[in-house]
Amino acid sequence: MSYLLNTWYIAGWADELAQGGMLGRTIVEQPIVFFRNSQGAIQALADRCPHRFAPLHMGKIVGDSVQCPYHGLRFDGSGQCTHNPHGDGSIPKAACVRAFAVAERHGAIWVWPGDPNLANDALIPDFSFFEQAPTDAKGHGYLPTRAHYELLADNIMDLSHVDFLHPDTLGGGALSSTRATIEELPNDRVRISWWAPDDVPPPAFGAHLEDPTRADVWAEVIWHAPGLMLLGSGATPPGCPREEGPVTWNLHLMTPQDATNTHYFFANTRSFEQDNAQLNAFVQDMLIGIFAGEDKPMVEAQQRQIGEVDLLGLNPVLLPVDAGAVRCRRVLRRLIEAERATTHASPSSSFEKEESR
Amino acid sequence: MSYLLNTWYIAGWADELAQGGMLGRTIVEQPIVFFRNSQGAIQALADRCPHRFAPLHMGKIVGDSVQCPYHGLRFDGSGQCTHNPHGDGSIPKAACVRAFAVAERHGAIWVWPGDPNLANDALIPDFSFFEQAPTDAKGHGYLPTRAHYELLADNIMDLSHVDFLHPDTLGGGALSSTRATIEELPNDRVRISWWAPDDVPPPAFGAHLEDPTRADVWAEVIWHAPGLMLLGSGATPPGCPREEGPVTWNLHLMTPQDATNTHYFFANTRSFEQDNAQLNAFVQDMLIGIFAGEDKPMVEAQQRQIGEVDLLGLNPVLLPVDAGAVRCRRVLRRLIEAERATTHASPSSSFEKEESR
Amino acid sequence: MSYLLNTWYIAGWADELAQGGMLGRTIVEQPIVFFRNSQGAIQALADRCPHRFAPLHMGKIVGDSVQCPYHGLRFDGSGQCTHNPHGDGSIPKAACVRAFAVAERHGAIWVWPGDPNLANDALIPDFSFFEQAPTDAKGHGYLPTRAHYELLADNIMDLSHVDFLHPDTLGGGALSSTRATIEELPNDRVRISWWAPDDVPPPAFGAHLEDPTRADVWAEVIWHAPGLMLLGSGATPPGCPREEGPVTWNLHLMTPQDATNTHYFFANTRSFEQDNAQLNAFVQDMLIGIFAGEDKPMVEAQQRQIGEVDLLGLNPVLLPVDAGAVRCRRVLRRLIEAERATTHASPSSSFEKEESR
Repeated sequence: MSYLLNTWYIAGWADELAQGGMLGRTIVEQPIVFFRNSQGAIQALADRCPHRFAPLHMGKIVGDSVQCPYHGLRFDGSGQCTHNPHGDGSIPKAACVRAFAVAERHGAIWVWPGDPNLANDALIPDFSFFEQAPTDAKGHGYLPTRAHYELLADNIMDLSHVDFLHPDTLGGGALSSTRATIEELPNDRVRISWWAPDDVPPPAFGAHLEDPTRADVWAEVIWHAPGLMLLGSGATPPGCPREEGPVTWNLHLMTPQDATNTHYFFANTRSFEQDNAQLNAFVQDMLIGIFAGEDKPMVEAQQRQIGEVDLLGLNPVLLPVDAGAVRCRRVLRRLIEAERATTHASPSSSFEKEESR
Repeated sequence: MSYLLNTWYIAGWADELAQGGMLGRTIVEQPIVFFRNSQGAIQALADRCPHRFAPLHMGKIVGDSVQCPYHGLRFDGSGQCTHNPHGDGSIPKAACVRAFAVAERHGAIWVWPGDPNLANDALIPDFSFFEQAPTDAKGHGYLPTRAHYELLADNIMDLSHVDFLHPDTLGGGALSSTRATIEELPNDRVRISWWAPDDVPPPAFGAHLEDPTRADVWAEVIWHAPGLMLLGSGATPPGCPREEGPVTWNLHLMTPQDATNTHYFFANTRSFEQDNAQLNAFVQDMLIGIFAGEDKPMVEAQQRQIGEVDLLGLNPVLLPVDAGAVRCRRVLRRLIEAERATTHASPSSSFEKEESR
Repeated sequence: MSYLLNTWYIAGWADELAQGGMLGRTIVEQPIVFFRNSQGAIQALADRCPHRFAPLHMGKIVGDSVQCPYHGLRFDGSGQCTHNPHGDGSIPKAACVRAFAVAERHGAIWVWPGDPNLANDALIPDFSFFEQAPTDAKGHGYLPTRAHYELLADNIMDLSHVDFLHPDTLGGGALSSTRATIEELPNDRVRISWWAPDDVPPPAFGAHLEDPTRADVWAEVIWHAPGLMLLGSGATPPGCPREEGPVTWNLHLMTPQDATNTHYFFANTRSFEQDNAQLNAFVQDMLIGIFAGEDKPMVEAQQRQIGEVDLLGLNPVLLPVDAGAVRCRRVLRRLIEAERATTHASPSSSFEKEESR
C-alpha cells in the first residue's frame, strides 16, 4: 500500500505522552515509539531494537534515552545506541534505529514518516484556535477504527450523510438539499462549503436559536492532504451574520495505521455558552456517542463490504455529493505519485535505502 | 468455490423477518438483505449500496423500499433506486442493486442466488407437513456452523453416527448394525433408509413404548440437492405398523455461507403426546442440546482437521455407511458441473455478466 | 517450515495424561493423540480418523484402543483398526493411522515425530535429577506461547536478559557484565556458562546468603538439540565451593507446535530450605509470574515485530551475548539439513512415503 510519506501525520494527543512514559503506535505500517527527553521534547524512533527486535516501547526511559526491555541497549532521540550494558560496553556500529522527525504543536504529537531532512514545522496546519479555546468548552478524543483512512475522510467531506446517519442530532435536512461549493486551495488543500439560507437547522443548533425551526445553515470543511480536516458549522437567524448564531469548530484527523486501520483523532470547540458546564458535558458525550456509535460502525461496515480493494476501483455510483471526497482522493493520488517519482529518481538517498530494506 | 446457483436455499425462518425489519445474511458468498414490502411480501437485494457500498440492512424500511443508512438512497424490491434525497433528486441510471428471486413457504424464507428468470416456486420441496403440525409439538432453530455444508449433510446421510455421538438419546445400536438402502429419486434427490426389525430402540423412543427394550426401528432421510434433508424415524412394537409407534419428522437444511461456514436450520415435529407440554419442552431442549452440543462441535472439529480442501480429495477410508453421503456428493458435483457448462455456453446472459464483475 | 523429525520432543507432563483419558496436542504441525493402554503404557497416534478425519482425542478409550467419537472405529497403539461396529464388522485394509514412537520418562511424555524405527529411548536426555528431587521442593508447568521455539531457546541461552527483564528477582547485574564461555558438547549439545566472582548476586539468591551483597555468581545452560535446556545457577560466598551456596536447577523445554507457536514446558528444583513450605510456594508463584508475566510477553512481542521470517535473515545487530544462541541455531540448521539429505536419499523408505502424502 502506498502512503504519502513526506508529510505530517498526527500520532497522538500530547497528553497521551507523560514525561517518563512511552507511546507505541504504528503509522503508515511503521511501528514507532514516542517518548520525551529530559527537557520534555518529544522523540520518535522505530519501535524495534536492532539487536533482537524487541519493541522499545515496552522498555523504560533513562535520561534522554529509551532502554530496550529485553537486553538493556539504550538509544537516544537521534536513534544512536548510547549504552551497551554487556561485557566491555563497546557499541556496534550498526546499533542504531531510525529516528523520525517529530513535533509537538496544537496539543498534538506530529510525526513525519518520510525523509527527516524535508520535515518542516511550518508545514503543520495552523490549528492554534483549538489551544486558545477555553478549556471547559472543548474536548478531544481518539477512536481506533477498522477502515481505510480515506473512507473516514470521505465521511467528513460529504456532510450530507448527517441527515441520514445522525438525523436526531446533527441532521436536519439542510445539507443534503444544498449543493456544496468545492475549491482547491494552495498547499494541497480542498475546501467544501454548504450554504442553506432560511432552512431547517440541525437539532443541536436549533436548541440555541430563538426560532429553532428556521435559520441560515452553513458548514465548511477544509481538507489538508493526506487526512487532516477542519470542520466549521453553524446556524443563524435568517439574514444575520454568522457570528450571531451558534458556531462549532471541529478537527477530524485521520492517520493511517495500515490499509484497513486508521487512528481517528477528533476535537471540538464551540462559540456559545462556553461557561455552561452542563452543556459542555452534554456536547462531549453527544459527540463521542455519534462518532463511536454511528460513524465508526458505518465506515467499518463499508470497509467490510468493500474488502481490501480501492473504493473507486469498484465503480461506485457517484452522486454530486461525492464531488468533494473525490477531489481529495485525486489530490492525494497526485501527491503520492509525485513523491514516488521523486524518491525513485534519487537512488543515492540514504533515506530511500533505509526504506527499501 | 463452486456452488449450485440455480436452486432454492433456505435463507432464514420467516419469523426472523418482522414487518419493517431487515435480515442481512451472506449466502453462497453473496451478502443479501431481506425485507418485507408494504404488503408483507419478502424482497431480497444485494446488501451493498452501489453508491458507497454501505450494507443496506443497517438502514430502514420506508414504504416498499429499503433506505441506505449512510446517504439515504432508497431501493425497491426490484433493486431500482426510487429516491435520491440529494440536490435535485435525479437518479443515476446505474443506481440499482441486484434483486434475488425469493419466496416465503413452509415457515421459511427461500432465496435463489442464480438467474431469477429460472426461479420457480414449484421447485421448493413440499415441507407443508411442518406448517400443519400442531404448534406446541414442533420446534425450529438456527445454528451458524464453522464447517462446509457437505460435512453437515454427510452427518445426516449417515445416521449410524447416532450410536456413537448421541448414545444416550438418539443412539441404541440399531442403525449402525443395519445396512441402509439407498436409491436416487427424481428431481435430484437421494433416499437412504434403515430397517432394523426386533432390535434395540433409541432411548428417546423406548421411553414411549410399552417394552422399551425391543422394537422395529426405522429411519429414512430424503436429501434434496444441494442440502435440504427430511428425516423421519420411529420405533414400533415388533411386527406392528409404523403408525402405531412414536414417529418424528425432522428437517435439516444446510445453506452454504462460504467454503467453511454453513447456515444450519433445523425443525422437528412428532406424532405422539402432542399435548404433553412438559414433553414438548423436553424434546426441544434435548434436540438443541444434541445439535449444538454434539453434532456441531464434531463437524467443526472435522473441518479443522480437514482444512480447506475437499474431503474426498484426502482419500478417506470409505465404509458401507458412507454410501448415502457419497451418492449425494456425486449428484451435487454433477449438477454444479452441468450448471457451469450451461452458463459458460451462453456468454450473452446478463446474469452471468453481473456475476463475473 | 522444516523441523528436526528424528528426535525426541516433550509432548506433555506425564500427569497431564490420566489412565482412561486422552491428550490431543499438535507437534511439528502434526496433530497427535496420546492415551494409555490397559497396562498404563502411553501410546501416540495421528489424531485424525482415516474414515472422516474426526479428531480421535474427542473419543473414548475402550480397552487398549481409542474409539473414534464420530462413527466408533477403534485403533490400538500400533495404529491398526481393531473394531468396526458397522454392518458385518469387516475392517478395510486402509483403516489405520500412523503410530508414533513414544516414551514416558522423567515425569514427561516424549514423542519422536520421525521414523519410529530410528527412535531410541537412550537418546532421551538424563533429567532424572528432577524425579529424584523432593516433591515439595520442585514444580513444573506449561505455557503455550505464540512465538517460534528458537526465540524461546534464545531467551535461555542468553541469560544476560535477566538483569533487564527480571531486575527485581533473577537479575542483579552479574550476568550481563560477564563474558560467557561457550563450548559444543558431544551429542548435539551446546553449553554456555557464566562465572562472576565476587559480584552482586540476584535478589532471589541474595536472600539466602549471609552477605546478600557479594557472592561468586554462576550459571550454566546445556542445550540439547532441538530445544531442551537444563539451566543451573547459584551464588556462594566469595571463594567458597558451589555446593555451599543456594543452587537451582531448571528445565526449559521447547516443543514447536508450528512456525509461530511453541509448547513451553518448565520445571525447577533447588538445593536449599527444601522443607520450607512457605518458600516452596513462594518460589513456584515467583517463577510462573516471571515466565508467564515477563518472558512470554516479551518473546511474543518479539515474534510480532519479526513476523514470519527467520530472525537471522533480518540482519540483527549481534552482540557477544548472542554467541550461545547463535551457536545453537547453527547446530540445529546443520542437523535439519543433514536429516533432509538422508531422507531424500532413501526414496524407498516407507516412512518418507507416508510423510509426503
